Amino acid sequence: MHSSVWPSHRPARVSIIGAGKVGSTLAQRIVEKNIADVVLLDVVPGLAEGIALDLMQARGIERCDRAFLVRSAYRCVFGTNNYADTAESNVVVITAGSPRKPGMSRDDLLQVNATIVVEAAKNAIAHSPDAILLVVTNPLDVMTYLAWQASGLPPQRVVGMAGGLDSARFQAFIAMELGVPTVDVSAMVLGSHGDLMVPLPRYCTVSGIPITELMDNETIERLVERTRNAGSEIVQLLQTGGAYFAPAATTCLMVESILFNQSRFMPASAYLQGEYGLKDIFIGVPCRLGSSGVESVLELNLTETERAALHASAQSVLKNIQRANEIMSESQSTTRLLLALWKLGAHKSTDVKRVDLTEKIKRTGEKASDYQGIFDKLEQEGAIAFEIKNRNRVILLTEKGVQMLRELLNTDEF
Amino acid sequence: MHSSVWPSHRPARVSIIGAGKVGSTLAQRIVEKNIADVVLLDVVPGLAEGIALDLMQARGIERCDRAFLVRSAYRCVFGTNNYADTAESNVVVITAGSPRKPGMSRDDLLQVNATIVVEAAKNAIAHSPDAILLVVTNPLDVMTYLAWQASGLPPQRVVGMAGGLDSARFQAFIAMELGVPTVDVSAMVLGSHGDLMVPLPRYCTVSGIPITELMDNETIERLVERTRNAGSEIVQLLQTGGAYFAPAATTCLMVESILFNQSRFMPASAYLQGEYGLKDIFIGVPCRLGSSGVESVLELNLTETERAALHASAQSVLKNIQRANEIMSESQSTTRLLLALWKLGAHKSTDVKRVDLTEKIKRTGEKASDYQGIFDKLEQEGAIAFEIKNRNRVILLTEKGVQMLRELLNTDEF
Amino acid sequence: MHSSVWPSHRPARVSIIGAGKVGSTLAQRIVEKNIADVVLLDVVPGLAEGIALDLMQARGIERCDRAFLVRSAYRCVFGTNNYADTAESNVVVITAGSPRKPGMSRDDLLQVNATIVVEAAKNAIAHSPDAILLVVTNPLDVMTYLAWQASGLPPQRVVGMAGGLDSARFQAFIAMELGVPTVDVSAMVLGSHGDLMVPLPRYCTVSGIPITELMDNETIERLVERTRNAGSEIVQLLQTGGAYFAPAATTCLMVESILFNQSRFMPASAYLQGEYGLKDIFIGVPCRLGSSGVESVLELNLTETERAALHASAQSVLKNIQRANEIMSESQSTTRLLLALWKLGAHKSTDVKRVDLTEKIKRTGEKASDYQGIFDKLEQEGAIAFEIKNRNRVILLTEKGVQMLRELLNTDEF
Amino acid sequence: MHSSVWPSHRPARVSIIGAGKVGSTLAQRIVEKNIADVVLLDVVPGLAEGIALDLMQARGIERCDRAFLVRSAYRCVFGTNNYADTAESNVVVITAGSPRKPGMSRDDLLQVNATIVVEAAKNAIAHSPDAILLVVTNPLDVMTYLAWQASGLPPQRVVGMAGGLDSARFQAFIAMELGVPTVDVSAMVLGSHGDLMVPLPRYCTVSGIPITELMDNETIERLVERTRNAGSEIVQLLQTGGAYFAPAATTCLMVESILFNQSRFMPASAYLQGEYGLKDIFIGVPCRLGSSGVESVLELNLTETERAALHASAQSVLKNIQRANEIMSESQSTTRLLLALWKLGAHKSTDVKRVDLTEKIKRTGEKASDYQGIFDKLEQEGAIAFEIKNRNRVILLTEKGVQMLRELLNTDEF
Repeated sequence: MHSSVWPSHRPARVSIIGAGKVGSTLAQRIVEKNIADVVLLDVVPGLAEGIALDLMQARGIERCDRAFLVRSAYRCVFGTNNYADTAESNVVVITAGSPRKPGMSRDDLLQVNATIVVEAAKNAIAHSPDAILLVVTNPLDVMTYLAWQASGLPPQRVVGMAGGLDSARFQAFIAMELGVPTVDVSAMVLGSHGDLMVPLPRYCTVSGIPITELMDNETIERLVERTRNAGSEIVQLLQTGGAYFAPAATTCLMVESILFNQSRFMPASAYLQGEYGLKDIFIGVPCRLGSSGVESVLELNLTETERAALHASAQSVLKNIQRANEIMSESQSTTRLLLALWKLGAHKSTDVKRVDLTEKIKRTGEKASDYQGIFDKLEQEGAIAFEIKNRNRVILLTEKGVQMLRELLNTDEF
Repeated sequence: MHSSVWPSHRPARVSIIGAGKVGSTLAQRIVEKNIADVVLLDVVPGLAEGIALDLMQARGIERCDRAFLVRSAYRCVFGTNNYADTAESNVVVITAGSPRKPGMSRDDLLQVNATIVVEAAKNAIAHSPDAILLVVTNPLDVMTYLAWQASGLPPQRVVGMAGGLDSARFQAFIAMELGVPTVDVSAMVLGSHGDLMVPLPRYCTVSGIPITELMDNETIERLVERTRNAGSEIVQLLQTGGAYFAPAATTCLMVESILFNQSRFMPASAYLQGEYGLKDIFIGVPCRLGSSGVESVLELNLTETERAALHASAQSVLKNIQRANEIMSESQSTTRLLLALWKLGAHKSTDVKRVDLTEKIKRTGEKASDYQGIFDKLEQEGAIAFEIKNRNRVILLTEKGVQMLRELLNTDEF
Repeated sequence: MHSSVWPSHRPARVSIIGAGKVGSTLAQRIVEKNIADVVLLDVVPGLAEGIALDLMQARGIERCDRAFLVRSAYRCVFGTNNYADTAESNVVVITAGSPRKPGMSRDDLLQVNATIVVEAAKNAIAHSPDAILLVVTNPLDVMTYLAWQASGLPPQRVVGMAGGLDSARFQAFIAMELGVPTVDVSAMVLGSHGDLMVPLPRYCTVSGIPITELMDNETIERLVERTRNAGSEIVQLLQTGGAYFAPAATTCLMVESILFNQSRFMPASAYLQGEYGLKDIFIGVPCRLGSSGVESVLELNLTETERAALHASAQSVLKNIQRANEIMSESQSTTRLLLALWKLGAHKSTDVKRVDLTEKIKRTGEKASDYQGIFDKLEQEGAIAFEIKNRNRVILLTEKGVQMLRELLNTDEF
Repeated sequence: MHSSVWPSHRPARVSIIGAGKVGSTLAQRIVEKNIADVVLLDVVPGLAEGIALDLMQARGIERCDRAFLVRSAYRCVFGTNNYADTAESNVVVITAGSPRKPGMSRDDLLQVNATIVVEAAKNAIAHSPDAILLVVTNPLDVMTYLAWQASGLPPQRVVGMAGGLDSARFQAFIAMELGVPTVDVSAMVLGSHGDLMVPLPRYCTVSGIPITELMDNETIERLVERTRNAGSEIVQLLQTGGAYFAPAATTCLMVESILFNQSRFMPASAYLQGEYGLKDIFIGVPCRLGSSGVESVLELNLTETERAALHASAQSVLKNIQRANEIMSESQSTTRLLLALWKLGAHKSTDVKRVDLTEKIKRTGEKASDYQGIFDKLEQEGAIAFEIKNRNRVILLTEKGVQMLRELLNTDEF
């Protein structure tokens, strides 16, 4: 009954990795605005399917029927936990990861979210090598960097959602202060998505009029401060998670600018190659987003103070990138160690000596002692155990260790 | 800076009681569609405020600025846990209550949700005596009945959201089956919002063509069955809660029909006074919703089978109404008993004898033994304790009992 | 500054031929709903450019920026009088032609619009051979037939806008009669777009309920009659042209169904090959419109009366198709005759005898006398003149005749 | 079947005087965006009714059903030529008047449009004394002034649409030049709506960034110049009228800001009482529009050059206001003269001497000779004639003169 001709102008497909609050609200926005077909993926079985079914049942009322995606009777939106279903996406959005809890900073999420984001980026881009990759998971700038590394994409095709949200919040606070419609306010926030973000009041306007003509400095400073803490303010209020309506709205705007080649100017976490005196970093700067990703980075004429603030912000991102790389590297070393143990048969009755093992996993320039920390940690977690067998100290891979390996490799094939 | 003149055409105000998933998604839909000002209320401190702040920050992007509500810098949407803030609402929507968990039927929620809904209806209508009351909490038809009783409103001003959602689901399944746009499908489901709902394929059409001309009976029967279980299907998939996108969409449609006096024909839980041979019951029937509430109930020419199904459905609602009344009555008796104990000083060292107590609380026609069950229950729950003091068996009101009383009276003033 | 990468999902392009009221309102709807890029073409110089510029200046306010088309700084919409600018369109809509004046029937437009539509179809499809062709010019069904012939497209790729508009009008009258929201009404009108259209009350519903359960026969008959005359009613009121808001709305809906592959069921003028017992005709029937054009024609179970009405309607279309073919053929003969005269030098001082001319233009099976009517007509219109020169009766091609030839060939190259 | 209770939150009603292109497109925008009920009025019989019927028939497709207005089965929109139907409007928009033809300046329309606008303002406000009056007819600033005088409203309740359109055009040209989305551009144009308008590049931004950081002066000057001529550019292209899509869009935005109390900052023609050093004039300045009309005028810190340009612009408006007052005054004198003649019986055989007449009409301080010009003009136009009767020179009121009086008084009661 369906047409077999694939139209030349098929609408875009957006895959959203992570069906938590931001991911599912983003799916809703994209589908209900008739922007694109959506494939929603979550590793938790059933979750994405349930959200998609709920959205399907709202379609008649919300009147969203512009779509080509037809999968087992679903149109417009499809929920899955299989990356193969995300194939041929034009944009992949990564929202997966743990949200903040009250009292946490965004950076506290680094360790837990790094692996999640790297896995998501790898898996998704493997099925959609031509996609633009949009990262939403916190800590934002670092996660964007990791996702870029994992994806192997050119840096222009990777971008992080942050400055747009910070700007929307600053915009809201200005509107609330002046009692003007939010849509008439334009705001600009650069830098990392965190406590060191750099709101730029000089570039904030109401119907073109700079706010510096409309408010005194003290008021502006108060709003700037509130903007910096705006995410935490909501985490404190909700207690059980962070904001999602505004984050999903900002992400949706970026998706539109990319899919419809709008070349919209907006702050986003982009890869810098010398702009603003910064290199090899993803950080919030004003850029133009179009169908090829980050079309260009706009260099504003910053004052010395603004520039210093941006650099301070960049320092914190760079530090976190380094920390993330260490975490990722330790995680890789752990994986290699456990995998080698498993291959040597340490989970069966085969006796594996530590020296044999380290010989196998050591890479050029590494010493056996480099792995001491990992051995200690794994023993402490019960993943491995040491035993004296025939006078030899041998290593056992416990059931828990096998399970950990399964998770690290993200496969059950053992 | 703001206008002091209150315009004659001020937009409607909708108060939403309960900031869970349905409530907050409904707030989003109403605000982002520029339908009305929203006051979102939740008893959990901070929750509604957090949602409102998040929605405020999305307004610039979603472009929703049609509103009159101005409260402490908020416009369009305001979060609170104080019923006084809901004053002068045109529509009050009750979404508060526990959602279903996998394996539960909607009726299993009766006990826990009855008190919540009754309190919400009383408190909200006290501040907005001219409002239309729209109930969304499950088990739907019973909750609507209780809310009506508690509100003291004329029955036409109270309506429950159910048939519209069931119809939207049936509509979605028909569209998925035929591969047609959902918007071209019209579906009709009557009866209680539960396993005994009554889908009417004869009144289901695709662009005006009855589905009986487009599908065989077996297919129709399969879709009918799936519609009956559609809510549970999503609960099973999500594991952590029920559907909310489609429920919020349907509720929003009803709110629009009321606020904009659209007189839309749609199935909804309405009070019957003889229509379809049913009386003193709220149950899903096709009605017209306008600014005065349920403008009229449309009596379709049902076949004998359809009518029988509707009556069976009604029986189950009536049974639940009776059960709910018993629960409410027991709850009232418990409250009166505990309050009397407290007034008699049983939480202090005063000795209270059972006979004195029952004399105080017995109402005309009641016997002391009518309270035996309540005594047993309270003792079992540790709210009261019996003790022999000076040869008398006296009743103590424990700390836990005082706490229970606090909750029942919804006040901390002890 | 613009991306050089052409995205795989470029949005659709719609070309609209004719920038009159329907054409320009259709351009507005498509652009302001962010449906597709629009190229608007009119033969009157400046007209389409002016409309496009006006629409460009409304874009900031109407917020329509989803588009890829970039031509000399225009985005989303471009006005032109050059068919080359319409290249690579996904849909071509023909609205060009004279509108009705009070007292005229749609058929009275046949002669004047036939040539316009044929030229438009040929020129547009030459530049967009993969497009779907949507005809709006009246008399609708005949014009669709002619456009199909001229385009050389498979019949499924050609469709006429008529039944959707007639249905929208019937729908509006039902809603006005019952005081229900128009969106809840579904109506079905088949047959030719003219006095013999066939409204089908059996397939008209309000929220799924047949109007036969909601109105008496007399009322229905009154609304049916008003529907038949709905176009003329507006022509009478406006005095200076016909309806355009509703026609543009219906056309836009068909464009959406095609571009977004919605497979929407709606009445449209489609090519029949035996369905409803009709062949080689375009006439209004319920069909599904998707990205390949008319995906299928739905055969309703018509009663004998309904079927007879449809056939009567078809007879009138067939008669008009025949008349149109004659007109087109006479127009071709006239062109060939004038062109031959011009080639023989009859506009200069060369003497051309009638017998020489007819020898040149006669086609197999034609007699010289077949051209008598055309000679008479041209002489009467002053395009040719007869003169006795050297005892021979010679034919002169007057200045007016050269001008007529220019127009017929649509070229100034003489 | 309809509710008899008038809801407390009835939606706003907007009356549009003039059903030409701007008026009917504005009606479409307001109705199809579900902003308010619309009463469309035109003095040409049938015209407004035809437009309203066409819009009614598009409602099912465009899905606009939010409305309370119910008049002879019409909902949302009603066409009429009777001012009584506009009663109780919240906003009255005057679009009536002649449009420009190629080669005309806006000021050339002064004479013909002055009477039209004055009549419209008087009649409309008589039925809606609480309305905000929004003037769109050109020459804009003068017409707004006249409408204010005629209406008797406080000046804050009268506003003219001009700066918003000029800004939208400047905005479009900036967006076209930079290839950015128009929605991200903010532009500011002050002064009269004419050749002396005052674009302010300093207050024009792209996502908050001043265009002076994005373009060189020459480019800006070119865009400024194009903005000044933007209206004429479209008149030249269309040949048969002026722009209407963008003017209707801007007017609609102002209507929204008023109805929904948005307090939007936008340039509009407002009454000045000393702001910018100007008094007793309507001219384009940035103001906030809310439900009470012009809530406040914002005084920007203009440079000397900008201020001088604004004053030059004001001079031309003041000159036109004076001219308009003369025209209106002459028109009043003419009316009084003709009416006196009619009352004296000069249209019958009664002999009326000039001296008797002038005695009757002379006002304090006027001399008989002040009327010489009017006598000359009326005689020339054939409205009066002089005759020697019984040696007296008497005045006759011709049939044409009676007709002229009828038109001036806008009544047929003679």
